[in-house]
Amino acid sequence: MDERMERQFRFALEADKEKRIMRQTYLSNGTEKENDAEHAWHAALMCVLLSEYANEPVDVLRTVTMVLIHDMVEIDAGDTYAYDEQAKQSQREREEKAADRVFGLLPDDQRDCLRGLWEEFERGETPEARFARAMDNLQPTMLNHATDGKAWREKGVQLRQILERNQITPKGSEQLWDYSLQHFILPNVEKGNIKEHL
Amino acid sequence: MDERMERQFRFALEADKEKRIMRQTYLSNGTEKENDAEHAWHAALMCVLLSEYANEPVDVLRTVTMVLIHDMVEIDAGDTYAYDEQAKQSQREREEKAADRVFGLLPDDQRDCLRGLWEEFERGETPEARFARAMDNLQPTMLNHATDGKAWREKGVQLRQILERNQITPKGSEQLWDYSLQHFILPNVEKGNIKEHL
Repeated sequence: MDERMERQFRFALEADKEKRIMRQTYLSNGTEKENDAEHAWHAALMCVLLSEYANEPVDVLRTVTMVLIHDMVEIDAGDTYAYDEQAKQSQREREEKAADRVFGLLPDDQRDCLRGLWEEFERGETPEARFARAMDNLQPTMLNHATDGKAWREKGVQLRQILERNQITPKGSEQLWDYSLQHFILPNVEKGNIKEHL
Repeated sequence: MDERMERQFRFALEADKEKRIMRQTYLSNGTEKENDAEHAWHAALMCVLLSEYANEPVDVLRTVTMVLIHDMVEIDAGDTYAYDEQAKQSQREREEKAADRVFGLLPDDQRDCLRGLWEEFERGETPEARFARAMDNLQPTMLNHATDGKAWREKGVQLRQILERNQITPKGSEQLWDYSLQHFILPNVEKGNIKEHL
């Protein structure tokens, strides 16, 4: 029993490192950027709050768990910025290796379960994975809007990039995607914070 | 529908402020302190990982939700350090007022649900609340141990204070409390990081 618990605590302590992995999204105060742990918490909370809008019924605990652990691989692989095309080419390989090590800290049954949930999230082919991916996209979009598109402006992000990244969002929730498009994205296109053309 | 969704997004955006509320616990690197959002994410993850050790069967989604929102009141009321006896006297009143405003941002049904979960967490009288409180205590204890008791040393924390705060921990999980005592707390008493007497 003690060995099992020790492995679980080893993983729990390792998870602490997510708090040092910075993302490109600014907090709503517009001065600091958020880290992976903060993002995962925020997206998990939104998952609980907004699950009523999922296109299909979802197992909320399964979805929340997916959201809580979806960035664990970044402890080794680092955050790959959504619109960094070069980094994205090596992302899959780096993250697979990270998943082996990080989820491998756990007892075998939990390793299989959590790694399975991470793979499911990545593939985005179940109602839970689609809704979790929608939350993963919706949360930074909300913050980018709240900071008058600061991160979008700084990175010169184009509308087509946002639409491409968000292809899975309406598959998780058409209603939330519609809200996000109307209230967060299009007003920033109007203001010139998101570039409309090549 | 849009008004409901707007209220939910108002709450979701407000939640972002938790990322600026600092706690007294150091991250495992021993240099930075963690904030409420990071703590809530970490404790929620541990809740999923360790629920098998709850004394009584718990509804894990209910428990995780409690953990995710348990510090929302600190957006207005601030973090009250566990061993600051003066601040603790006004804590209840400050937090009740904060709960009125913060959960009041939500649609009525979700306000009642989440505020109810917060009250349940505070009272600690259900299996879910007891296990959530155990996670709330276990997470910083694990980090304090990982940093060679740095926060305990700096604050001159006494064993009796830790035992008093952790009265609820074995009520959530005797096995996890036993592990925490043997692996995290007592070795730090031995090293003098936690004071043993008055």
